[in-house]
Amino acid sequence: MTLKNSSFITIDDLSNAEIEALFALADKMAGSMSEQLNVCRGKVMASLFFEPSTRTRLSFETAMHRLGGSVVSAVDIKATSLAKGESVADMARVVGSYADLIVIRHPWEGAAKVVAEYAGVPVINAGDGGHEHPTQTLCDLYTIKKERHSIKGLRIALWGDLKYGRTVHSLTYALARFGATILFRPGPGLGLPEHVARKLNAEQKGELIKYDALDQKIKEGVFPLDAIYVTPTRPHQLAMMPDISAQIDLKQGIDALYVTRLQKERLSSLPDEQGLDEDYPVVNKKLLEKKEFKETLVMHPLPRVNELAYELDADPRSMYFKQAARGVPVRMALIALLLGGADITIPASADTAGFRADYPLYRQGYGVKCANPQCVSIQETEIKYIKPKFHIVSFKPLVLRCAYCEHELFPQYVASSDWHEGRLANRKYHSAASHWVSKIKPENLIVFNSESEARVRGFEPSRFAGTVRDVDRDKRESGDDEL
Amino acid sequence: MTLKNSSFITIDDLSNAEIEALFALADKMAGSMSEQLNVCRGKVMASLFFEPSTRTRLSFETAMHRLGGSVVSAVDIKATSLAKGESVADMARVVGSYADLIVIRHPWEGAAKVVAEYAGVPVINAGDGGHEHPTQTLCDLYTIKKERHSIKGLRIALWGDLKYGRTVHSLTYALARFGATILFRPGPGLGLPEHVARKLNAEQKGELIKYDALDQKIKEGVFPLDAIYVTPTRPHQLAMMPDISAQIDLKQGIDALYVTRLQKERLSSLPDEQGLDEDYPVVNKKLLEKKEFKETLVMHPLPRVNELAYELDADPRSMYFKQAARGVPVRMALIALLLGGADITIPASADTAGFRADYPLYRQGYGVKCANPQCVSIQETEIKYIKPKFHIVSFKPLVLRCAYCEHELFPQYVASSDWHEGRLANRKYHSAASHWVSKIKPENLIVFNSESEARVRGFEPSRFAGTVRDVDRDKRESGDDEL
Amino acid sequence: MTLKNSSFITIDDLSNAEIEALFALADKMAGSMSEQLNVCRGKVMASLFFEPSTRTRLSFETAMHRLGGSVVSAVDIKATSLAKGESVADMARVVGSYADLIVIRHPWEGAAKVVAEYAGVPVINAGDGGHEHPTQTLCDLYTIKKERHSIKGLRIALWGDLKYGRTVHSLTYALARFGATILFRPGPGLGLPEHVARKLNAEQKGELIKYDALDQKIKEGVFPLDAIYVTPTRPHQLAMMPDISAQIDLKQGIDALYVTRLQKERLSSLPDEQGLDEDYPVVNKKLLEKKEFKETLVMHPLPRVNELAYELDADPRSMYFKQAARGVPVRMALIALLLGGADITIPASADTAGFRADYPLYRQGYGVKCANPQCVSIQETEIKYIKPKFHIVSFKPLVLRCAYCEHELFPQYVASSDWHEGRLANRKYHSAASHWVSKIKPENLIVFNSESEARVRGFEPSRFAGTVRDVDRDKRESGDDEL
Repeated sequence: MTLKNSSFITIDDLSNAEIEALFALADKMAGSMSEQLNVCRGKVMASLFFEPSTRTRLSFETAMHRLGGSVVSAVDIKATSLAKGESVADMARVVGSYADLIVIRHPWEGAAKVVAEYAGVPVINAGDGGHEHPTQTLCDLYTIKKERHSIKGLRIALWGDLKYGRTVHSLTYALARFGATILFRPGPGLGLPEHVARKLNAEQKGELIKYDALDQKIKEGVFPLDAIYVTPTRPHQLAMMPDISAQIDLKQGIDALYVTRLQKERLSSLPDEQGLDEDYPVVNKKLLEKKEFKETLVMHPLPRVNELAYELDADPRSMYFKQAARGVPVRMALIALLLGGADITIPASADTAGFRADYPLYRQGYGVKCANPQCVSIQETEIKYIKPKFHIVSFKPLVLRCAYCEHELFPQYVASSDWHEGRLANRKYHSAASHWVSKIKPENLIVFNSESEARVRGFEPSRFAGTVRDVDRDKRESGDDEL
Repeated sequence: MTLKNSSFITIDDLSNAEIEALFALADKMAGSMSEQLNVCRGKVMASLFFEPSTRTRLSFETAMHRLGGSVVSAVDIKATSLAKGESVADMARVVGSYADLIVIRHPWEGAAKVVAEYAGVPVINAGDGGHEHPTQTLCDLYTIKKERHSIKGLRIALWGDLKYGRTVHSLTYALARFGATILFRPGPGLGLPEHVARKLNAEQKGELIKYDALDQKIKEGVFPLDAIYVTPTRPHQLAMMPDISAQIDLKQGIDALYVTRLQKERLSSLPDEQGLDEDYPVVNKKLLEKKEFKETLVMHPLPRVNELAYELDADPRSMYFKQAARGVPVRMALIALLLGGADITIPASADTAGFRADYPLYRQGYGVKCANPQCVSIQETEIKYIKPKFHIVSFKPLVLRCAYCEHELFPQYVASSDWHEGRLANRKYHSAASHWVSKIKPENLIVFNSESEARVRGFEPSRFAGTVRDVDRDKRESGDDEL
Repeated sequence: MTLKNSSFITIDDLSNAEIEALFALADKMAGSMSEQLNVCRGKVMASLFFEPSTRTRLSFETAMHRLGGSVVSAVDIKATSLAKGESVADMARVVGSYADLIVIRHPWEGAAKVVAEYAGVPVINAGDGGHEHPTQTLCDLYTIKKERHSIKGLRIALWGDLKYGRTVHSLTYALARFGATILFRPGPGLGLPEHVARKLNAEQKGELIKYDALDQKIKEGVFPLDAIYVTPTRPHQLAMMPDISAQIDLKQGIDALYVTRLQKERLSSLPDEQGLDEDYPVVNKKLLEKKEFKETLVMHPLPRVNELAYELDADPRSMYFKQAARGVPVRMALIALLLGGADITIPASADTAGFRADYPLYRQGYGVKCANPQCVSIQETEIKYIKPKFHIVSFKPLVLRCAYCEHELFPQYVASSDWHEGRLANRKYHSAASHWVSKIKPENLIVFNSESEARVRGFEPSRFAGTVRDVDRDKRESGDDEL
């Protein structure tokens, strides 16, 4: 099988088996670094960084050079084409006609997906705002796998900014896919966001147990957990008792402690985000003296600020510089695969099970657009050509997920494009909380964020257009299923 | 013949035959892209961008990499050497001693010419302020030629910002040289500048007919023209009747529609330049439904803003992304030729006719300097070593053209360095509008912008130093040719 | 012998013999520029410029390309990782795990040394604030040597900003090492700093004679000297009479005139640094007409501003563009040596004499830190892991030199960690001016900047803790050597 000409925008773009095969290739390349100079000879990679990131960019560019390829690079591009009002799609089409591969970092969430749709060449997402940074996730997984041989069944603790750290979100999904148990230890006010929790529960086979359900000991221990994701691969009885499970996990020791810095640049200036760094938890020698950390891999995507003490640098458990160094062979393997310079073999026994939920699409329009101000789809230069597109990830409650930035939308009102069999003059809208939602076929669903939006488009309220309480009352009173 | 070691500063640096041969080489290279890796192996190109332009820079750098060469790149250099007060010439000499080829974009008009004079290696102008961007013109011509096989006799319409768009000016001269008829359709207040019109009329064989002379139908039609350049290659009778000619041209259909965006970054903040973008004409599906656009190539140098609708992107007539893509082979061919990595053969029958007017030079000094505030020759760091230099493009009226930025100068007063056969004590100056101008040999001409400048340099007014009206009256009254 | 895997942070990192061998390699490479493409094939150089410097960066990057290597480049990085609070050491470790060689320019003095300590790969200092820029010094020496065959015994005049020009300080030490006589001709208020003078006198075999000691003729001549460094290689009698010597030197002619611009970017905004550029001395045709400059090499590290007239550019004595051009082969030789792509042979007869003074180290801590606000060791992000480290360059007066930035520190108080044989309760501090200083073993020395610092750390004043005058009086009165 080949990954040639495909793009890598989210970690879900590769199956577990493909990731394992990519790691095997990275191993091979790391072992014969100087012999890879013909793998991508004559190929040109465009490195487009619309947000500064020296580390990630140099890692990609070094990888390409070690494969014998060339690099054209544009850094901090804000001042140039964007200032002239150019769209992401136009930029992608033009650069895609020059280069053989595009690596893109962009502050708008979903921008890498747009680039991939228009470039005509393979695209690698090197970070799109707070959305994803999937090659970082590859490096993280690669380090765990190299040090522990398998991720399945490991206990991995995530530490620090679990709210804004994009690397943490991608890593969470990936660890769950590979069957790890995940312990969440956030800084105050920096717990896992709702949408990540929802995605974990909906798309992974394990179970996420949040704070409220956790035993007091675990909540207030030396390693105070906020939540735990219990992989279904562990014995069933334990999986049924998450509290006990977490205690056992802590007692058995943590395989890896993944530390992140506070993502200050993603904080809004809301008052409740002031001072988040004051009580930010610190990993240092003292913490690591505890029994549960005896053989823990200490990981960090870097750069660190104060959350990871320098005194640990010489500790054999510290993996963060190795983790950074391994970015080069991992990215070499990825680039080589997408450019067709190398191929992978997936063994017949491999885990190629589906890892991407198959949700119905919402593309009806009717004025619904993504509510995330950082989403590429709503930017002034992009709205001209990008049609809003959502995955309907749940009907009750009604939740749409933007196909670009993956932020969630909770429409308040619904209608059907088919309900009245053509009697368009009779168009009605209903509360999204009413029972009618589940009666509308996904392909006919129309959603509105407000009643005024529905009215503007010529819809009128049905009896079930009230608030949730109203609707329930109406339903009880009428027992009527006809509109 | 060889272009090795020559520079490419304006489109006039190449003859029609050389351009055609360069295109043939670009064709060949585009057809075997991966086989060019030895053409410039071991050569180093310096890519110096004193103004941001990701697109153009990446195109040049990709071209060099595809030829097997290396690139050193300096982007947005304003903050560095310039801040230390370095001159363009010093920068050129130093970088020219490192690299084998310099590609330069600079905000000062004429800067690329200065670089070429001092670098000691071939130099390519990648845009010097509002002056020229000749490789863009090459890409434009190449696209037209590839799609229509010959440019001669085509009808090309230029659309939008004909005033500030540097690509439009170069393209205008080039199209005229290749025998195209050019239809000018500017946005309001954005018509072709006087100096371009003058250069067209003076140096090309065809005729430019401006708005006032055009038929009302053409002025107010669906495609409201501002001017038309009629190539002399068409039948004489038609060339004599430009109004009719324009109507015929429109009826026969337009071969290419070259759209440009409003060059906002070149606008001054003069009040009459406010709101120019409000009535800026837009090219969209509806416009292209008209009969005259049935087989029109839609072109645009990109980036676009709103003047070219996204709905056209899938239209087979749309050429703008192809146009951008072809920048790579065209620049590969150019670089290869200047570095001596390839040679061209000009057939004996080729059009090597002169394409550059041979004007007398003005280098006398006497305080005359270019009046264009963007001209390289008058900048604080450059005035120390650049001597003003002008082409005397017309004696009646007296018009000098700056040899660096090509802006025109209209001196008000003249004198002769030879007139009085040595009687320097008797130095007189005359009105530039008087009949004496034509009696002064070009090599003896001295010009002044004002009477005070003339006096400062020790000249006294002759009887013919008055205003135009005065002079004419004086002349009528005296009938005297002696001073 | 090999320089493989060593770093080049200050000019003292290479012996005279190594420098000469490097120059021989540069000669060889300059003579067969196109045959070096395999010397560093497959190697990757990281070019990290935390301060803008187009010229130096392009020179290094061109050198690497001409050796067949690749370059990853980060320019003006202030906005990126540093903004995220990353330390120099972390950056060094990460980039060192990607690339085979790091070239670093950084505004903090001593930063390149820190990079070299942590990178794990060879590091070249491309300028660390006002500290050193040793490859510029190599280029300067190379030019003199190529034009005059040997540096020994030459008379070299340094002109202009001798206070802030870092290139001048490195060059001064290097010229002294190679046995040149140095004439200092500063702009007003821009004389050689004390610490350079002290280092020259302490570590070189010649003698520095400052203004006060110079003959009036020399002070006020057409070439008004501020100081002269007399090499010990000249006949002893002359070396004993510096005044006469300077006159003879000027009469015999100057071999090289090294001109520098005012380092405006290093000026603080102190009032006495206003207007330094007004009386800045200018080198022009008129000056060079004087007999002593008849065969003088005119040198300048560039960029120039006004201190070197353009009229000299065509003068055969002008070397500054050659000097810049030679930066490429010199840097090629250096890179090749550090990467092991080439080796040098040091003849048995070569001058491998020690060139680096061997001072005792001060690493006791006790709150002493470097007083230079630009020193890397005291920056907020660095203080977490860098322990202050000093060379004790003199005991009377007590002078410590920062091991990072080489700025000097003059501690006011001292103590001993050993003096009382364990009676720590009895810890006393003494004035640094007292005779006790010389009785403390270097490895036991403790220094304090103030009495309060000493007291805070639990020390009490001895009888010899007063001011210099007090101490001397105490000493006279008591004659007591016991504390």
